Amino acid sequence: MPHRFDVIVRWSDEDRLGHVNNARYLTFTEDARLVWLADSPAGSGGVILARTEVDFRSQVHFAAGGRLVVQTWVTAIGRSSAGLRQDIHRVDAPDGVATTADPAQVLADPVATTANVLVCYDYRNQRSRPWTEEERAWLRTWMDQEGG
Amino acid sequence: MPHRFDVIVRWSDEDRLGHVNNARYLTFTEDARLVWLADSPAGSGGVILARTEVDFRSQVHFAAGGRLVVQTWVTAIGRSSAGLRQDIHRVDAPDGVATTADPAQVLADPVATTANVLVCYDYRNQRSRPWTEEERAWLRTWMDQEGG
Amino acid sequence: MPHRFDVIVRWSDEDRLGHVNNARYLTFTEDARLVWLADSPAGSGGVILARTEVDFRSQVHFAAGGRLVVQTWVTAIGRSSAGLRQDIHRVDAPDGVATTADPAQVLADPVATTANVLVCYDYRNQRSRPWTEEERAWLRTWMDQEGG
Amino acid sequence: MPHRFDVIVRWSDEDRLGHVNNARYLTFTEDARLVWLADSPAGSGGVILARTEVDFRSQVHFAAGGRLVVQTWVTAIGRSSAGLRQDIHRVDAPDGVATTADPAQVLADPVATTANVLVCYDYRNQRSRPWTEEERAWLRTWMDQEGG
Repeated sequence: MPHRFDVIVRWSDEDRLGHVNNARYLTFTEDARLVWLADSPAGSGGVILARTEVDFRSQVHFAAGGRLVVQTWVTAIGRSSAGLRQDIHRVDAPDGVATTADPAQVLADPVATTANVLVCYDYRNQRSRPWTEEERAWLRTWMDQEGG
Repeated sequence: MPHRFDVIVRWSDEDRLGHVNNARYLTFTEDARLVWLADSPAGSGGVILARTEVDFRSQVHFAAGGRLVVQTWVTAIGRSSAGLRQDIHRVDAPDGVATTADPAQVLADPVATTANVLVCYDYRNQRSRPWTEEERAWLRTWMDQEGG
Repeated sequence: MPHRFDVIVRWSDEDRLGHVNNARYLTFTEDARLVWLADSPAGSGGVILARTEVDFRSQVHFAAGGRLVVQTWVTAIGRSSAGLRQDIHRVDAPDGVATTADPAQVLADPVATTANVLVCYDYRNQRSRPWTEEERAWLRTWMDQEGG
Repeated sequence: MPHRFDVIVRWSDEDRLGHVNNARYLTFTEDARLVWLADSPAGSGGVILARTEVDFRSQVHFAAGGRLVVQTWVTAIGRSSAGLRQDIHRVDAPDGVATTADPAQVLADPVATTANVLVCYDYRNQRSRPWTEEERAWLRTWMDQEGG
């Protein structure tokens, strides 16, 4: 299964049209990515986002305490970079209270899909560095995890 | 007990000093207030924030998936206004995973305390209106609920 | 004259009701305060916001490239603290292009007024410190500067 | 020349690393796009962002009152869509006060480049619609405007 991260939508995420603002999608994938990386051998501090592509598929309206789910998985591993897919899903719980702790819960179609390029970065020397073997092994465990 | 609302802190809530940005405290109390009001007879749409006072008591640092709790209770009820106290607490769960669903959970000292004035507002006529008896009764159930 | 700072309103500052979001007012006064302090002997890094009071006086609607003005002046000087008034004004330029560089320009009534407490802070020792004489002299030049 | 839009960077745009937060780049291009579209025959209300690609090329650090420039131009015109390039530049004015009103001013290399897909949208019928001839003519005036 892909990594799952719950987002609580805020009133101020929404714009005049009643839609979650486009820029917030990067905030949602950012938080999901940082939480996911926090458990990695590289940590969240040594990996930077070099590129993102976002397809906005449908509009999200706010509901008080509304919840979205970001699913994250690895699509490619390079020498010092990685491809990362992060999709954002609405949760259509019958009672409005999503229990995403259950990884088998079926999610609605994504409201946005993103393809990202991560670079392993050495801040001290201000340049990229190759993944270590341990880091590569960890990344591989997140491949072939297409969302559902 | 006061109303409790969980906030998930975002990476982008934090500033260069590693502190949750001052302005975000109003975002946290706003979301707590809207969720609280959503269950009221007035609904969240007919009550506006006329005034807020915020005392910043200690600095909050981000942790991936970090959680704060907003406690909300009523301090005064006027003809068409109400006093609302909203305090923001850090949750010092031993395992880092706060279970604020448990209302008896002991919270740390507030990182910020706020005193707010709400006004019951008639958007159609663009002016305040008196609370109905039903609304006043609901507000009274949230008085004398000092945080702990 | 008070210190004047121009704010460019963003589309994402606005909420579903078409109003500039309440929390953004603290963002506007924050930026005005930091630019104002950047020219002070204390610098912007050694002064923290301990308390803010905001009165929301009228609703602000977005217009592409819309502009607000924050006026800042000192209301009191204590041993290690200071009172700071910061008011936010709409600019009703006939042609929609405000030229706030002109300090004599007449501003519309404030959309929000704020009263703030600043504390001179020594981050190294993590506690407040008294203003120096030079800092006090600079603060005094910003007293009795009520907006217009 | 491409369309030019000035962004005033905010303190709260910056993250713990002292970088302008990734998600803010979409806020900057959004505001530039809306101001640009406000002068179009379609208006800003009838055109939606369907897709964005962002390449983060260098890190931007905040300076009080700091300024960025977004350059916008059209790269392709389809039946009901358009390709839009939006690049974000730092302004390296010798005196720190950029005068981007001067369209001939030389900008530094972009800190981020973006490629976007716009769709002409009929909100009433909730579906895309073809550009009118007038709209196509206006879009064509913004082609072949590569930044400099």
